[in-house]
This record gives sequence, C-alpha cells and structure tokens, in this order.
Amino acid sequence: MEMGVPGLPTPSIGLEAEMAALKTGVSAIYPEITGLPVLKNETSRFVKLFLNVDVSPQGCIPTVGSMMGGIMVFLVANRSDQTKESTLFIDPGFPVQKQQVKMLGQNYYSFDVYNYRGKKLRPKLESYLQTGKISTLLYSNPNNPAWICLTEEELSIIGELATEYDVIVIEDLAYFGMDFRKDYSWPGEPPYQPTIAHYTDNYVILLSSSKIFSYAGQRIGMLVISDSLFNRSYPSLLKYYSSDKFGHSVVFGALYALSAGVSHSAQYGLAALMKAQNDGTYNYREEVKEYAEKAAIMKNFFVSNGFNIVYDTDIDVPIADGFYFTISYPGMDGKELLRELIRYGISAISLDITGSERNEGLRACVSMVPRDLFNDLSARLKMFGEAHPIKNK
Amino acid sequence: MEMGVPGLPTPSIGLEAEMAALKTGVSAIYPEITGLPVLKNETSRFVKLFLNVDVSPQGCIPTVGSMMGGIMVFLVANRSDQTKESTLFIDPGFPVQKQQVKMLGQNYYSFDVYNYRGKKLRPKLESYLQTGKISTLLYSNPNNPAWICLTEEELSIIGELATEYDVIVIEDLAYFGMDFRKDYSWPGEPPYQPTIAHYTDNYVILLSSSKIFSYAGQRIGMLVISDSLFNRSYPSLLKYYSSDKFGHSVVFGALYALSAGVSHSAQYGLAALMKAQNDGTYNYREEVKEYAEKAAIMKNFFVSNGFNIVYDTDIDVPIADGFYFTISYPGMDGKELLRELIRYGISAISLDITGSERNEGLRACVSMVPRDLFNDLSARLKMFGEAHPIKNK
Repeated sequence: MEMGVPGLPTPSIGLEAEMAALKTGVSAIYPEITGLPVLKNETSRFVKLFLNVDVSPQGCIPTVGSMMGGIMVFLVANRSDQTKESTLFIDPGFPVQKQQVKMLGQNYYSFDVYNYRGKKLRPKLESYLQTGKISTLLYSNPNNPAWICLTEEELSIIGELATEYDVIVIEDLAYFGMDFRKDYSWPGEPPYQPTIAHYTDNYVILLSSSKIFSYAGQRIGMLVISDSLFNRSYPSLLKYYSSDKFGHSVVFGALYALSAGVSHSAQYGLAALMKAQNDGTYNYREEVKEYAEKAAIMKNFFVSNGFNIVYDTDIDVPIADGFYFTISYPGMDGKELLRELIRYGISAISLDITGSERNEGLRACVSMVPRDLFNDLSARLKMFGEAHPIKNK
Repeated sequence: MEMGVPGLPTPSIGLEAEMAALKTGVSAIYPEITGLPVLKNETSRFVKLFLNVDVSPQGCIPTVGSMMGGIMVFLVANRSDQTKESTLFIDPGFPVQKQQVKMLGQNYYSFDVYNYRGKKLRPKLESYLQTGKISTLLYSNPNNPAWICLTEEELSIIGELATEYDVIVIEDLAYFGMDFRKDYSWPGEPPYQPTIAHYTDNYVILLSSSKIFSYAGQRIGMLVISDSLFNRSYPSLLKYYSSDKFGHSVVFGALYALSAGVSHSAQYGLAALMKAQNDGTYNYREEVKEYAEKAAIMKNFFVSNGFNIVYDTDIDVPIADGFYFTISYPGMDGKELLRELIRYGISAISLDITGSERNEGLRACVSMVPRDLFNDLSARLKMFGEAHPIKNK
C-alpha cells in the first residue's frame, strides 16, 4: 500500500487515439510548444464543463506530467516579484514538490492544516502572507496523502487572501473528481469539482491525467493558467526570460527549455479522452470509483482491528473514500507502526515525509491491493490487533 | 530553410515497438525513473559499438529529449563545485542551451571557434578555464549551425584540459553519425563517431533520437554519463539534492523533479531502434544520408550564384555535407541578406543568434526543402544573383 500509482488500465479511447496518431507520422515532427490545438480546446471545454470556469485554450498547456507543470510554475511564479521568494505549502502534501523548490534554490514554508480547518485557516495563512515573502501557495485537493478536501469556505478564504496579498495559488487537482461523496462527472451539470478559480484570478491548476485517466506512463498533464494571470506582466521575469508576460514565460521560457514540449502521440491520446469525457460518451468516474469502493472496505478492516483514521473529517463531515487514507494505532508512533506492519506483510509510507505533524500516522494507498487479497489483509490485521492489545480499550 | 526539424518519417521498427508496448498496458504505469532496463542496455551497447566507449547501462538515462538532458546536466554539473559557476559554450551553437542556463540563473561564457581551430584551441580554452569559474564546457559535433566537426586533435585538447581543470564536458551528439565524409554506421567496426570519451573521464554525452531516428515528436533522448563521473561525489550537491553523488543527483534529483521520467511507450520504441541498429538489422545512415545528398546539391546552387560557405573547412578539409550549412553573400551582412532572400521566397536564420561572430552569415537547413522544389530554388538563386551583382567579382 506504499505506492501512489494507478491500478487501472488506460481507457482504450486514449490508446487508440495515440496509436492512430503514430500511424499518421506525428512521431517525426516536433510538437508545437504551445500544445496541440485540439488538446488545448478540449481542456478549455473540460474546465468549463467540470469546474464551471472559463479559461481560454491559450492558457491550457500540456506538460510532461503535472510534475513538470509544477516546476514550470515554480520557475516563473516564484520569480514574478523579486521582493518575494517562496512557496507556502498547505500540508500534508506530495514531498517531491518541496524537492522541486529546493532543487531550484528557492525557499519554502509549510504547515500542517490539521489544526487549521475552516475559519481557523484565515489567521494561519495571514501569519505567513504578512511576511511579504510568499509568491505562491500550493495545496492538493483531494489531498495526497490525507484525502481531506478543502471546503468552499476554505477555498474562499484562500482566494480572498491570494488576491489581497497578490499571491499565485497552485491548485493541484491530481485526484480530480475523486471526492466520491459527490458526483462531479456529468458535463455541464452541478455539482462541479470545487476550485480556487471561483475565488481569485491569481491561480493555476495542475490537471494530471495519471489518476483520472490512468495515464501515468505517458507523462502528460495539463497546466491551466487563468486568463488574467496568463496575460499579466511581471517586470522581474525579464531577468530570466525574454518576456515579462507570465504565460509567455511559462510556455516559451520554462516549457521550451525543459523539454521542448510533450510527447506528440500522448497529446492526441489525452485530447481524445478529454473529448469523450466532455461529450459525455465516456465517464472517468465509472472506472475510478473502484478506488472508493476498495477504500471503504479496507478502512473498515483497519478500524475494526483497533486502528484510527488520522485525518478523519472535513471539519464536521467524515472524509471521502478514495485513493489514499491515513491510519494510526494506539500507543505507537508512525515509524514503529510501519516496522510492525511490515512483519505482517503490510506496507505503507510514514506521514512525516509529507509535512504532517501527525507523526503517529501512515498513508495507505488502495490502488495496488487487489480485491482477492482482501481476505488476507483482513486476517493479517486481525492477527496484528490480537498481537498488539490496546491498553484502556 | 529556417527550421531545424527532421524531414523523414520515423522508422517503422520504432513505431511498431511503441504500439506493441501501448497494447501491453505500459501507459497506465509510471516508468521507472532510472529508465527502461532494455533501453539502458541497448544504449550501453550502442555507445560501445558506435563510439567504441564503455559506459555501464546505469549511466545511460532516458530524458525528455536532449533538451531535458542538457538542463539536467546544468542543474547538477554547474552546482558540483560551489567555487565555480558556469558553462563555457564553444560557439556557434544552439541558442536554447544558453536560454536554459539563463533560466536557471547561472552564468555562461562563449566564443566563436572560427578563428581557434586546431592547436589554436588550447590557449583560447585555457584563457577561460584559468578563471576557475568554469564548471562545464559544451559543444555540438557535428556543429549546429555551422556543420563543422571537431578533429581528433581538437577533441584531445578539450579532453586534456577538462581533466587538468576538472571541468565536465557536455558533448552534444544531436547529429550523431552525420559527418557523411565518413561512415560511422557499422556496429563494432571502425571508423567510430569521434568523441571526447577517449580523452577524459569528465564527460556526459547527449544522444538525441530526433535526427538519427527522426523521432523528434515523442521527445526522447539518452543522457550518457561516464562511469567515473556517475559515481563521483561532489559535496556541493548536498545543497540541492539528497545525495552528493553525481549520477544519483541527475536521476533521483533532476530527472525526477522535472518530469518523473520519460514516456513509457517511447522508451520501448527507442529501445527497438537502438537494438536494430546495434544488431545491424537496421542502418540509420541509409535514411539520413538523404540530408547530405540534398546539401551537396543545394550548396552548389548557392555557390554557383555568388554565395560563399561561411564555415567552410575543418582546418584544411572541406566540411561535410549534412543537415545544415552556412551561407553569406559578398557585400551584405546577415540581416540584409535574410531580408533580401525572403523577397525571393527563401528563408533561413541569422548566425548572430548562435554566438557566431560571422555576422554576415545565415544558417540553411536542408531537411524541409523537398527535391521537387530544387528547380525553383536554383532559378530563384539565379534571379537573386543577377539582381545583386558582386563588385570586383
């Protein structure tokens, strides 16, 4: 359960489009650096139909996975104002994003959101933003690793403060639509995936294809930049780029210098998947809801054998079932629990590498545990529980 | 003639392997960050068979094009010694590599090699290396844009100085094997593609697939790191990476943070192409020699209408015919010539953006000019020559 990788096959719509593109000869031709027009258009449609947000195709940019989308934003947004310098991470989070910032020689701040949900988020965020050092603010929603989802109230607080302090929000939707308490999967119909885009113009969105379309192998994601931000001028950018425009620097500066674009055939594949989802002829949720169903069962195995869910609520509502969940066991810290679980053939990762302060916690990922191992998992957890009696239970 | 893009289709061996891999489901699975083992092995074989150099598969790393290979090296090698800071470019060269260095906030030096061929190269290089500021030294061979090829004597000078001054050489073989005066295409048989690897252990090689295998669309290249360099420790790296080892920092630091690896299916495609070339069942030269044949004809059109070849010799030998050549016209500077040629429907790029001091020169690329336009090209150049009589001819 330690790997955060998709456990489903890529939908055939994408593969067939990719193979058809290869047959037409796209592999010999450099992809347009701005991205394949049909992919940009379908992404703009997707953002309208599933987020209820208007972004022109110009601001929808294919990247070599959201990993590259993130570092492109750090390379541009964290240099947009020379008086600022760093990213504020709302943790827990994906450790590699901090590694990216470190590799670029930039600083970062972070805090564990566990004790700052709801209205408590505002003063906590302001304590960082008031330093004047924050260029960008990053979170994932649903959250890797905790699977918490920020509420509309929390998003509105982040958006208002981003505008007030002129900070760019990086919203990582790697697990788009996977708050399975709601169904965000019908084109143009509410409810929509919650997003910061309703609360500020200072945003970019990282749309990974790895989980929603099980497309991790081809390394393609979409970076979505608000129209306002895309066209904004930041004189500080001229130190690194040939233009002071945000969008121009992202595309012709960062993306060109990192990889000169994205696999040509994968762009056709993702465009076909986006189009099918937009047209309503395909529904990603039918595929990935398997993760939620497995999570419900697996969480029950853990809880019924004495474990706790660490990040257990979105303020007053139990968190969704999905790709990840977090566990702890009474009387053990995370390292100890990890060590003990391994003895029962059960693996996970420790939350402390994710910026969580809940050092008793582990992250479990459901994707690579097949249902035919569920009986084994249940039996092993029962053995674990019996071997580790809980005091004062 | 302004575009430096391949004009040939990808060999079917690569496409078929890519499609076969897609059918087996690789698109759903994150590629190994170190690279597909079969691709690493075939690249190691390729380096042995066509460069006559031993590099273990560990040091053969797939990248999202050589564009990413380059920036990965800048991200690691230019930080390997905190008392140094920059790259020395032997120009003329590919302007985007300087853009990469600038984007990373690093410095660079450069000089036009035109007046420093042969033994004159040593004192010129030493004048830079003696500053103690040079971390890396980069050139392309054959050269984009000038199509000059460094001689074995010149490579030996570079290698000796790289060892003496502890500088890492970045050898960009984007146009591998395209010095068509020689045939480097037979596995394990001399002559071999000349390389710095025979003259120092401080090297990396950028092996693009874009031109040799006409695979530009899929964004895949191989970064080859010498065994010695791969395993070397540089304490300065710990400021940016979790390891002080060069190879570890390149793979688990830079590559992971930039894109988390390379398109899974493209790795299978390139592995199949490399294997066929290594086995001798395919020969890239049969395909790409078309560029040389076209260059010979096109250069003749220009020269017979009063043009000169700017970079015309490798010391005492006429340069090879290949992907690019450089032209000038008596009494005009490059900007003027570009402007005048456009009036005849002939496009090129000015050499001044490539770091060349020959500001009378333009770069012409043969790939996108089909043979059935040759009569037009010849006729237009004749008109151009008649309309621009050369004084004192």
